[in-house]
Amino acid sequence: VTTVHSDDQLNESLAHIRRLLERHRLLDALAHRQEGPKKDLLESLQHRQNLADVHKRVNALHAADAAYVLEALPPDERQVVWEQLRPDLAGQAFVEVGEAVREWLAETTPPDTLATVLETLDPDDLRYVREWVTPDVFAEVARTLASADRQAVEDAAHYDEDDIGHYMTRDMIAVPDTYSIQHVLSDLRARGELPPQTDRLFVVDARNVLRAAIPLQALVLLEPSVPVLAAAITDVTTVDARSPISQAVTAFERYDLVSAPVVDDRGKLVGRLTVDAVMDMARTQADQRALAQAGLSRGEDLFASPWDSARNRWPWLGLNLVTAFIASRVIGQFEGAIRGLAALAALMPIVASIGGNTGNQTTALMIRALAGDQVRFSGVHRLLTKEIVVSLMNGSVWGVLVGLAAIALYSNLALGAVMAGAVILNLVVAALAGVAIPFALHRAGRDPAYGSSVLLTFVTDAMGFFLFLGLATIFLI
Amino acid sequence: VTTVHSDDQLNESLAHIRRLLERHRLLDALAHRQEGPKKDLLESLQHRQNLADVHKRVNALHAADAAYVLEALPPDERQVVWEQLRPDLAGQAFVEVGEAVREWLAETTPPDTLATVLETLDPDDLRYVREWVTPDVFAEVARTLASADRQAVEDAAHYDEDDIGHYMTRDMIAVPDTYSIQHVLSDLRARGELPPQTDRLFVVDARNVLRAAIPLQALVLLEPSVPVLAAAITDVTTVDARSPISQAVTAFERYDLVSAPVVDDRGKLVGRLTVDAVMDMARTQADQRALAQAGLSRGEDLFASPWDSARNRWPWLGLNLVTAFIASRVIGQFEGAIRGLAALAALMPIVASIGGNTGNQTTALMIRALAGDQVRFSGVHRLLTKEIVVSLMNGSVWGVLVGLAAIALYSNLALGAVMAGAVILNLVVAALAGVAIPFALHRAGRDPAYGSSVLLTFVTDAMGFFLFLGLATIFLI
Repeated sequence: VTTVHSDDQLNESLAHIRRLLERHRLLDALAHRQEGPKKDLLESLQHRQNLADVHKRVNALHAADAAYVLEALPPDERQVVWEQLRPDLAGQAFVEVGEAVREWLAETTPPDTLATVLETLDPDDLRYVREWVTPDVFAEVARTLASADRQAVEDAAHYDEDDIGHYMTRDMIAVPDTYSIQHVLSDLRARGELPPQTDRLFVVDARNVLRAAIPLQALVLLEPSVPVLAAAITDVTTVDARSPISQAVTAFERYDLVSAPVVDDRGKLVGRLTVDAVMDMARTQADQRALAQAGLSRGEDLFASPWDSARNRWPWLGLNLVTAFIASRVIGQFEGAIRGLAALAALMPIVASIGGNTGNQTTALMIRALAGDQVRFSGVHRLLTKEIVVSLMNGSVWGVLVGLAAIALYSNLALGAVMAGAVILNLVVAALAGVAIPFALHRAGRDPAYGSSVLLTFVTDAMGFFLFLGLATIFLI
Repeated sequence: VTTVHSDDQLNESLAHIRRLLERHRLLDALAHRQEGPKKDLLESLQHRQNLADVHKRVNALHAADAAYVLEALPPDERQVVWEQLRPDLAGQAFVEVGEAVREWLAETTPPDTLATVLETLDPDDLRYVREWVTPDVFAEVARTLASADRQAVEDAAHYDEDDIGHYMTRDMIAVPDTYSIQHVLSDLRARGELPPQTDRLFVVDARNVLRAAIPLQALVLLEPSVPVLAAAITDVTTVDARSPISQAVTAFERYDLVSAPVVDDRGKLVGRLTVDAVMDMARTQADQRALAQAGLSRGEDLFASPWDSARNRWPWLGLNLVTAFIASRVIGQFEGAIRGLAALAALMPIVASIGGNTGNQTTALMIRALAGDQVRFSGVHRLLTKEIVVSLMNGSVWGVLVGLAAIALYSNLALGAVMAGAVILNLVVAALAGVAIPFALHRAGRDPAYGSSVLLTFVTDAMGFFLFLGLATIFLI
């Protein structure tokens, strides 16, 4: 019988789990009322039956769906589901959940239980989650590993968290370059199963240097007597174990790869990178950037304690307060002018705001061009020139509009002219800063997505206030 | 000889093309000086030789790299490279480039040339780029297609740009459920080559309803006499041709898929979605969100004319000006207070700014939770409660700090107290708006990443000014 599954079926299953968990909470609450012993017994039976239902439902989930359920549940219900998961499914789910929830699981699970769960993982996954468990638990898990596997896990120490080597798997098939297709086929049949996401086998020479790759389809289509080197593709995109993972993301996107051989600096085959790991990484990068742009250094467990959440947000708020106070001091220098003409106080945020908005547009385009490495190819001066031209055009249009609005509001021609002039000048500042800030961060080896926006807004706020109030002091007061 | 290629080799090749193009520009400039006829001849020879080098280099590129080069070059040099590309490579590059550059290519290429280029595309790719070419060019290309292929292209009209059906390929292998492995193998050998990203074949019944899938490795590992249904996996994740592509992105990420069968509402197999299309889509989505958050409705050609660029940025600037003017009118109501105490004008942006920053943190977390569909599972009221508690904690800490700073600056105890109170209240407003705005947009069927930030900043600015100046009017003036 075919069971083709779809999103709807998953949603139905999740809704069912949700109902079971609510029932569990109700039964729990009833049990705590402690009424007559007879009722207790009945409730306890219902309770156990309900938990058995939860057990059945959650263990029928794919590990990634179980991880999703763990992330979406508040701590008490999350704990119920976590305790009901089979150790192997729990192990996979532990690998799949986001960092914040993984941290929570590692902290709240008793060491022995956690060790039992982690013993079900293969060396690659164990390596990946190693930093989240205490050395004691890790030592206990490592004791159960075969010595070759233990070696594979220990190798992790060689690679940074940003290296391709950190994300590769050692689960791959490499065949000697002296084999024929027939050789390969009988080896594979003896092995029984291929590693997930295997679209090709790697061909290595006697020193384990990568020579070529054989697509799986060649094994299906070709005569068994053909030597592998005749069937193999020699034009292979490799990735370097010590290169940053972002390079691999680009390569997989550009060349539509399913898997790529990972080599060391001497060309020796050390592992295999698969598209699922690359996709996860690309998603994580995009998520982290989106959070970082709002000033969150890391993801937050949706159900983190308010205290943990508050502290996670402090570094950014502190930084922003410093820049806001500096901008405030700029205004402070012109308090005399503001006392003389209070309309200045009402209008100055407009000048700052339009500068911030145009500058952020420029920054967003720059960040994208820098990420695609297009700026190196085309040169930054062309972009800067263009952005300044655009800012002058925008400044003329919006500056005049804003100036006219100011005249309409305050019946003060000079005020309108000052307003228009300040907008034009602040847009030029915004264009300069919008190109220069991300470019400078990129040159300094940092991801321009982190911090560009706060720096830019600081510049356009402070300069917006300074230009508008300064011009007003000169021409109006 | 093995030619394993890496990022370094690509960069070297690109640098070479860059040098050739610069040389081309120099030779062009020399040719326009028009000196003696002898020198002309020599230069023209050099010129032609140089172009031949460009031709050789760019045609050795992978289509995705050629697309990258086209995107990174200013119009004059882009045109040189585009004209030198072989029609088939030009066709693939036309599919791979970003929308802004595709538009430029479609506009600047003569119709006949464009038709020649597009004739090299398969029906899936042609369907994908159809909206960028004029009906005349498309009709000319369609005339060269076999009638089945023309039908496949016309089917595009059935699917929205957001549907999975728009991104699927019809290039797949489906086998009847009555076959044995032997049958399949001989069919494949007769076919000669498998479509890219084929990790499994689909098994259909007589009515073309999907029954199961056979992993490619089963063909390698199993006895030829085994019936396909015995070898096939019946637990297949399918995607629906009319579901939004974002669902497919989630499914591929969660279940580590390389390809998925696309079915219609009756379960019939209509196409195949591959991981490369999904990854491209995920990247495009992430890019568009990042641009949209800065108020750019679409990507911009790095070398678009300033006029086009300026207009691309206007809708956002217009919207922001409206909100900035409203916030300005809020301040305008308190001009009397500001005249009395100009320090208010200097301090009010701080209250607005800290509200905007905390609110954007909340919004970023909400957007992520909504995208992961976790809010539906866990309920919005829990999140709202938590964010309000966090905002009160943050408000107490930062409110007091800001208040003390105000006292230190202006030696005015009451001013500090008003400042602290306004910060606490505005952080509660920010928490409410930070949860409510993305949630409301999501409920209305919109992506909360678009527009949340501008709405939130509007609320926290206007309320920040109102709370601070209002409290000041009551307690200080």
